[in-house]
Amino acid sequence: MKFSSRIESCSLSPIRKFHPYMMEAKAKGRTVYHLNIGQPDIETPKEFFDAVQNYQEKVLAYAPSPGVETYLEAARDYYLSLGYQVSCDDILATYGGSEALQILFSCILEEGDEVLVPEPYYPNYDTFIRVTGATIRPIPTEPEQGYRYATREQIEPRITSRTRAILVTNPGNPTGVVLTAQERRLLVDIAKEHNLFLISDEVYRELVYGGQTPSSMLEYQDAAEHVAIVDSVSKRFSATGSRVGVIVSRNRELMGHAMKIAQGRLCAATLDQVGAAALYRSMTPEYYAGLRAEYQHRRDAVVEELQKIPGVQFSHPEGAFYLMVTLPVDDAEKLQYFLLQEFEDHGETVMYAPGEGFYATPGKGRSEIRIAYVTAAEKLRRAVEVLGHGIQAYNAQNRS
Amino acid sequence: MKFSSRIESCSLSPIRKFHPYMMEAKAKGRTVYHLNIGQPDIETPKEFFDAVQNYQEKVLAYAPSPGVETYLEAARDYYLSLGYQVSCDDILATYGGSEALQILFSCILEEGDEVLVPEPYYPNYDTFIRVTGATIRPIPTEPEQGYRYATREQIEPRITSRTRAILVTNPGNPTGVVLTAQERRLLVDIAKEHNLFLISDEVYRELVYGGQTPSSMLEYQDAAEHVAIVDSVSKRFSATGSRVGVIVSRNRELMGHAMKIAQGRLCAATLDQVGAAALYRSMTPEYYAGLRAEYQHRRDAVVEELQKIPGVQFSHPEGAFYLMVTLPVDDAEKLQYFLLQEFEDHGETVMYAPGEGFYATPGKGRSEIRIAYVTAAEKLRRAVEVLGHGIQAYNAQNRS
Repeated sequence: MKFSSRIESCSLSPIRKFHPYMMEAKAKGRTVYHLNIGQPDIETPKEFFDAVQNYQEKVLAYAPSPGVETYLEAARDYYLSLGYQVSCDDILATYGGSEALQILFSCILEEGDEVLVPEPYYPNYDTFIRVTGATIRPIPTEPEQGYRYATREQIEPRITSRTRAILVTNPGNPTGVVLTAQERRLLVDIAKEHNLFLISDEVYRELVYGGQTPSSMLEYQDAAEHVAIVDSVSKRFSATGSRVGVIVSRNRELMGHAMKIAQGRLCAATLDQVGAAALYRSMTPEYYAGLRAEYQHRRDAVVEELQKIPGVQFSHPEGAFYLMVTLPVDDAEKLQYFLLQEFEDHGETVMYAPGEGFYATPGKGRSEIRIAYVTAAEKLRRAVEVLGHGIQAYNAQNRS
Repeated sequence: MKFSSRIESCSLSPIRKFHPYMMEAKAKGRTVYHLNIGQPDIETPKEFFDAVQNYQEKVLAYAPSPGVETYLEAARDYYLSLGYQVSCDDILATYGGSEALQILFSCILEEGDEVLVPEPYYPNYDTFIRVTGATIRPIPTEPEQGYRYATREQIEPRITSRTRAILVTNPGNPTGVVLTAQERRLLVDIAKEHNLFLISDEVYRELVYGGQTPSSMLEYQDAAEHVAIVDSVSKRFSATGSRVGVIVSRNRELMGHAMKIAQGRLCAATLDQVGAAALYRSMTPEYYAGLRAEYQHRRDAVVEELQKIPGVQFSHPEGAFYLMVTLPVDDAEKLQYFLLQEFEDHGETVMYAPGEGFYATPGKGRSEIRIAYVTAAEKLRRAVEVLGHGIQAYNAQNRS
C-alpha cells in the first residue's frame, strides 16, 4: 500500500523510543528514575475534578466549535489578569497545545513551506510540520551561548521566500531559555518586517525562576496580524491528561480559517473544558507562586547534583522544567542503552531524552541530553547521582 | 498575511451557516425546531458519568499515546462480541471519529491525491481531505435510486492513478443508506483489485432498521491491508461531547504511521477514555435494541409526516438518523432563509441542513435537504408539519 511521503519522513517520538528497554530493565527488578518525560507528579487541583463531578447535564453534548463559553471566558479573564487585552473571539479552544499547533500549521503551511525554529526544539513540532508538506529550518544555537537564539544574525539569514513563520517555545522546552523583553520585541519586529507569523508556544508561562513577570507575545498590539499564541492547561495546572488548550490571536482572518478546521472536527471535549474553566477561575497568585517555588526547588536540586559530575556542561535553566546537558560521552544514545541494559547502581538506573532527536541538523546534540525535573527533589538528586556513576562506568568500559 | 491555498479552499460548515439567522428568529420570540443537527437528545448512560466521578488518581496524567488500556480492551471486546477478531494493537484511541479521519488522511494523502466518496457525503470529510492537499472525487448517486452507490459501474470509471482510498459512511450520513453484504463485499473487492484503502466510517453501526445485524468492514479478513475503520462512542452512546473514537485496522504499516501522529499529539483525553471504557463494558444487547427502537420510532414519525407534504420525495431511510429529502422548491437555501426570516406557523418555524453542502458536484442537491431525527417523535411530527406549511407559503410567495 502506498503511504504519504510526508508520513514516511516522520519518526516515532525520540522521547518514547527507549520504552521497551526500560520495560526490560524493570522486568529485571531495576528501579528506573525518569528524567525523560514531561509528566509532572504534582497533583491536579481538585477544582478540576469537582467541576467535572458536579456536571449536571444528562446528555454529554457537543460543545460549541469555538469552545465552551465558560472556558473561553475564564481563559480570556486569565489573559486580562496578565494585562493582555483579548476577547473571546480571539480564543479558540483546542485539544491541548498539540491541536492548537496542528490547526495553525494547517492554516498557514503547504508543500515546500518553511518554519524557522530554534534548535534544539520540541520534537513533535517536526511531525506536525512535516505532515503539511512543509519543513523546519533550524535556527542554530550553541550550548556555550546558553542556547539563545533571538538575534538578527541568527535569524534573518535563514529567511527565504518560503518562510511562513517563526515558531518559539517560551519558556523553552528543551532548553529552559526564557526570552528577555528585548528579545521578544526583536522577534516581533523581524516577523513584522518579513511578513511572517510569530507562533509562540507559551504553555510554561508561569514557570520562570529569575523573578521575571510571566510574559506573552500578546503584549505586542502592533503585531496583532502576526502573533498567534499556543497555550494549554497541561503544565500550568498539572493536568496533562485533560487535553485542553487554546489558540489566541487577534488576526481575524487567521481565526476565521482556524474555525473551518474547528467546525470540521466539531468540538474539543466538553467535560474537560468545564474542568479547565474551573481551574482558570479558581487559581490565585499564591497557587502560581507555589508552583513556581516547587519547580525552582527541583531545578536547584538537579543543578546542584549535576555540578558534582566531572565534565558535564549546562547553562543555568531559567524556565519551564527542562534543561539540556552536554555529557562527557561520545554518544548519549549509546549511554542510554548501556544504562538500561548493562548498568546498575544499587539496583537503580536512569532514563533521559537523548539530545539528537531535538535537532534537525545532522550530528548535532549527540553528546547532549534533555532532563525533565518533574519529580520530587530527592528523587531527582539520586537520579542525577546514578547518571554520574553511569557515565563513569560507561567511559571506563569504552576505554578498556 | 499569506495563508495555505488549501485552507483558503475550505468552507465553514454548511450545517452551521444559518446559526445567526436562527438566533434572530429566536430573538423575535419564534420557536425553532431543529432538524439540522446530529445532536441526540437521548441521555448519556450514567455509567459514563459514574466512571468519571469515580476516577481516583490525584494527577490527571497523559494517557498512553495508543489509548488508555481499559478503553482499548473494552473496544476490542466490543468488536469481538460482534464477531470480529481484532487485538488491542489494531486499535488506536482518537479524539472522536473526527481525529481518526484526520490521522488516516495524514497517513495516506498528499498533494494531488484523490479519495472516492459517494455524494451526498458528510461535509467535514471535505475539510479534512482538502487540508492534506488532496480532493474528493465524488461517486454520483441519484435520489431516485435511493442514493445507492456500491456498483462497479459507479465506482471503477472514477479510479485514477491518484486515487488512494474509497471512503464510505455505513450506515450513511446524510442518506441513511445501509450497505448490503453483497455491496460491502464488492467495495472490498474493488479496493483489493485497485490497491486502495477502504475507509469505513461506522459510527452509526447499531442504527439499522431493517432487521440487519450490525456490520463492519472488519468482517473481511482477506482485506486486512486495505480496510481501516473509523468509529466513535458519540452516537452509539449519545456522548458526542466526550470526543472518544478509534481507528481500527489490521494493516501494521498503517498503524505504525498513525502512531507517529498519535505520539506527536501525545494522547486523547484520559478521563473521557475512562468513561468510554465503562460504556462499552456495561452496555447490553437490550441497550442497543432500545436505542434502535427509539430511533426507528422517530424515523417512522418523520416518514409518516413527510408523506403528507405534496411533492416531497425521499427514499425510506434504513439506518443512522438522517434522511435526504427532495423538496418541491427551487432552492432549499432560499427556503431556509425564508423560514427563518419571514415565515412562522403559530410562532414556530424549522431548520434543516440544505443539501448543496453535501455535494461536490456544482448545482447538485439544490432542492434537497438533510433531516436529522434526533429529537422526540412528537416534536419531529410538528417540525415536519411546519416545514410543509413553510414550503406552501414560500411557493405561494414566489408565484405571486
